[in-house]
Amino acid sequence: MKSLQDKIVKEGNVLSDQVLKVDSFLNHQVDPKLMKAIGQEFARRFADEKITKILTIESSGIAPSVMAGLELDVPVVFARKRQSLTLIENLYTADVHSFTKQETNRIAVSKSFITEEDHLLIIDDFLANGQAALGLLEIAEQAGASVAGIGIVIEKAFQNGRHLLLEKNVRVESLARVQSLADGKVTFAEGVLA
Amino acid sequence: MKSLQDKIVKEGNVLSDQVLKVDSFLNHQVDPKLMKAIGQEFARRFADEKITKILTIESSGIAPSVMAGLELDVPVVFARKRQSLTLIENLYTADVHSFTKQETNRIAVSKSFITEEDHLLIIDDFLANGQAALGLLEIAEQAGASVAGIGIVIEKAFQNGRHLLLEKNVRVESLARVQSLADGKVTFAEGVLA
Repeated sequence: MKSLQDKIVKEGNVLSDQVLKVDSFLNHQVDPKLMKAIGQEFARRFADEKITKILTIESSGIAPSVMAGLELDVPVVFARKRQSLTLIENLYTADVHSFTKQETNRIAVSKSFITEEDHLLIIDDFLANGQAALGLLEIAEQAGASVAGIGIVIEKAFQNGRHLLLEKNVRVESLARVQSLADGKVTFAEGVLA
Repeated sequence: MKSLQDKIVKEGNVLSDQVLKVDSFLNHQVDPKLMKAIGQEFARRFADEKITKILTIESSGIAPSVMAGLELDVPVVFARKRQSLTLIENLYTADVHSFTKQETNRIAVSKSFITEEDHLLIIDDFLANGQAALGLLEIAEQAGASVAGIGIVIEKAFQNGRHLLLEKNVRVESLARVQSLADGKVTFAEGVLA
């Protein structure tokens, strides 16, 4: 997706050959117009799938997911990373390890909102080691829901997340695939789009 | 806002005379069309204010804020409740106590994204004791930014949040004001809108 590539090149901050920071438009400050375009692109790629619901994870998955949900006219469910007092039982849960944050979070989704009738599109902001996406897949499986695929805003293609997801026979659609962050420079697996 | 009132009456879950759960369209599952209508209504109410940026807090503030940002054509910044490894310095912070969750979170916003040039619209999902909104106001103040007002999706008008915000001379716009949750029933301060 060219507008996303352009934004990553212009505003992305390469902190190391492993870490790309996109706090100016996705992870802390959010660009609503770009999120709308991202939502439209996810909707286009999964248009034939009769999606019933989008499943994502707080917080950075919410903005692109809500825009995709608007476009596909389906609700969005965001998995919570901690249980709150008003959300205590009747949950599907999975444990997700974050290598970046060096912590394991239990993510949870109410059984009220995902059922075996659902055909889900899973969306997340980043795909790196695939742990969050695998956790969301696990929750879909617990609910007996089918999964049309996983939509990723930015994939770090040099990490093994895609490999782990493809092993589960799930379709992965990434809007930008970063092949390398070497020498402080972003190189895309799909090349530079015109 | 009538469509919001209708949704609260239809899907809101009155857990006690203090607690209204709206997990089916705002706090866990999100209704993208309603979020769009909410964003448009915030934009309409603050149309004359020359807003430069929306400031909200993860996670439930993000969906309505991104829709308002799309309508007003401004970026959205969401305060984070915990510091991540890729966001460690150069922060405005405030401590926010949640009476519901019985915990205090430090919220943080990067100094890169709010400046004294900004005229902010602060948005949050709920107004109850006002602690989150006060924390966001404190961050705006640290940045030297001006605040056009605070947009709230659902206000619990029987708690003292509005009072505390008005003491700070800030405009408060709530799209639905719940006056009472007595007897398991939602009563609105603004009456039932036609």
